[in-house]
Amino acid sequence: MTQRSERQMEFLRRIDGLKKIGRQTYLADGSRKENDAEHSWHLAMCALVLREYMPEPVDVARTVEMVLIHDLVEILAGDAYAYDAKAQADQHEKERAAAEEIFGILPPDQGGYFKSLWEEFEACESGEARFARVVDNCQPLLLNDASGGKSWREHGVKSAQVYKRNEKVREWAPEIWEYMEALIEKHVELGDLEGG
Amino acid sequence: MTQRSERQMEFLRRIDGLKKIGRQTYLADGSRKENDAEHSWHLAMCALVLREYMPEPVDVARTVEMVLIHDLVEILAGDAYAYDAKAQADQHEKERAAAEEIFGILPPDQGGYFKSLWEEFEACESGEARFARVVDNCQPLLLNDASGGKSWREHGVKSAQVYKRNEKVREWAPEIWEYMEALIEKHVELGDLEGG
Repeated sequence: MTQRSERQMEFLRRIDGLKKIGRQTYLADGSRKENDAEHSWHLAMCALVLREYMPEPVDVARTVEMVLIHDLVEILAGDAYAYDAKAQADQHEKERAAAEEIFGILPPDQGGYFKSLWEEFEACESGEARFARVVDNCQPLLLNDASGGKSWREHGVKSAQVYKRNEKVREWAPEIWEYMEALIEKHVELGDLEGG
Repeated sequence: MTQRSERQMEFLRRIDGLKKIGRQTYLADGSRKENDAEHSWHLAMCALVLREYMPEPVDVARTVEMVLIHDLVEILAGDAYAYDAKAQADQHEKERAAAEEIFGILPPDQGGYFKSLWEEFEACESGEARFARVVDNCQPLLLNDASGGKSWREHGVKSAQVYKRNEKVREWAPEIWEYMEALIEKHVELGDLEGG
């Protein structure tokens, strides 16, 4: 085996750690919280199924690659809960260092490609990145709805926070937003999300 | 929301069940066994990283889609352990019925597309399907190696079974096979795999 393939295999072993990074979102049946690897797989499925709702032209294969790798930095930097402002604050610097390290395991051409893909996701200035962000917003909402708003209640999340976090979907994918908005309003009525 | 999008969202909710289908392979650190959603994500990553080792031309985006959906039938049909001959026997019929049901949740154009993709994976007659099979063989071996052959020991697996199950990789992706063969021989020497 060459040094090149050793690095590739080492990368594939190391990223197994994504399966151990917990998220705050419960599975649809509420039985336990999901992890980053499961989440990444689910986002890729959302991208394949919901592609027709992006009004702008999008290379879906690129969005799929993006969502598959978008959380790898959390193997080293950990997950910061979306509605925990303190944890979010210094997360960006930690993730940048993590990207250097994790993608640096690969041969430079591949590591550089994945790193630029991750940076594109973070910058959110391409159609592919916007679509990745749309599904990354939509999937937790689907699960929060299916699991009866359990995670929102545990964290005392306010509907205004959910609106703020997902506000770009309204502009980027209006039909998906329409569906998401109805879910949010349903859970405000049910009392799972605090109003205001 | 239209009936079309309702079916798509329902599909995305239902396939959450993939996260609850257990496999026999341990995570790299041996702490627990992985599930089908984590496995599917990991295969997609293997496809992105190892594409250069397929000697034949392959549309990697199609292989990625294939591995993302290849185990969805197990939400209804369950997982049959690769080295359990009895469980494998009637698995095929159960999976065919499961494919009808799970992909039938989607609008016909999308459901039909995924079903044909799954059938292509099963038939294994295209380059894309062969590459999917290669990574589906390689990934468990990587994890079995990293976790010290724990799953093989638990099931008393013989090296001849592993060779038989993975024999096509030698033909389809010789360089990956070379790496896999070295891992198998290492674990025969360590006594994690029974010889013969």
